[in-house]
Amino acid sequence: MQRIIDFILELDKLKGVTRKVKPLGLTRYENSAEHSWQLAMLALSLSAYAPVGTDMDRVVRMLLVHDVGEIDTGDTLAFVEGGWKERKAAELAAVERIFGLLPEPHGSLFLALWREFEQGETPESRYANAVDRAMPVLLNLSNEGQSWRENGVSHARVVARIAPPIQAGCPALWTYLEARLEDARQRGWFGA
Amino acid sequence: MQRIIDFILELDKLKGVTRKVKPLGLTRYENSAEHSWQLAMLALSLSAYAPVGTDMDRVVRMLLVHDVGEIDTGDTLAFVEGGWKERKAAELAAVERIFGLLPEPHGSLFLALWREFEQGETPESRYANAVDRAMPVLLNLSNEGQSWRENGVSHARVVARIAPPIQAGCPALWTYLEARLEDARQRGWFGA
Repeated sequence: MQRIIDFILELDKLKGVTRKVKPLGLTRYENSAEHSWQLAMLALSLSAYAPVGTDMDRVVRMLLVHDVGEIDTGDTLAFVEGGWKERKAAELAAVERIFGLLPEPHGSLFLALWREFEQGETPESRYANAVDRAMPVLLNLSNEGQSWRENGVSHARVVARIAPPIQAGCPALWTYLEARLEDARQRGWFGA
Repeated sequence: MQRIIDFILELDKLKGVTRKVKPLGLTRYENSAEHSWQLAMLALSLSAYAPVGTDMDRVVRMLLVHDVGEIDTGDTLAFVEGGWKERKAAELAAVERIFGLLPEPHGSLFLALWREFEQGETPESRYANAVDRAMPVLLNLSNEGQSWRENGVSHARVVARIAPPIQAGCPALWTYLEARLEDARQRGWFGA
């Protein structure tokens, strides 16, 4: 029992990992814990647009754990170039440490979910990745492009980065976003 | 699709609903969105102590939606007395409004999960309630009783409020907490 409690208190640190987008109407930046909750809710709400047969409960579990490594590494803007491999190695070391706090088999189960999300080879992980890419875009589309403008991110960069994973995991979501992003471009909500 | 997007953006407001306990090491108060994420993680991590046969995925879904009504009503300290019935009616009206933003059957499915959690009549909802009661206590036990002291809450009050639901939903968790709470009492971490 104590090892589980130590684990859940370690997870508390994810509430202090800040991302680049702000919750609507708030002046502070979003943290990775509340982001993970919102992704799980988006995945469930959008399930009619997931590929037939997608195991939505595994999607939810993946989304709950996918950012836990940021406790050690911090969040990295999705549009930063270079250093990807090093960051992923650091995140793997982090989740091995953190999930290793738990008694087995729980630690290994969480680690397997984290790896499945990262590898993106199952319909569940592709759908989960699509949801993860889409959520900050949805916030930016309601926020006049706040994090795109603050970080000098162009329309072309956003499209190049998110179109492939969202098309792969949830095609209807990409169709929706493509039109919204073009509208945002015309409004001047991008940073470059 | 647009109704789902409107719903998920409405949910963004839960990030701005503050609770009475602070995340460890942070000066701000916890919000109900990150709290919901942590509960889902605690439920999964503690599953070895859940009653045999508990459907853990339904537990997770319940915990993800159980606080959504606070978008309209705000959080209420678990130790406030009186007005409970009125607050619950207000929360029900809130979740009917918010889940009603979704196309069917998603709205009804979320509402059914919310009702199941509130009614506490299934093993899943009792376990989910136990986890919900335990998490702020675990934070207070690591925080020298921060929210108990700030709100003048006594040891007896905490025990009276949380022992029955935690014993009902996850007896081993209560055994653990009972000893930790007694230790906290001796350290003077309560407010009255």
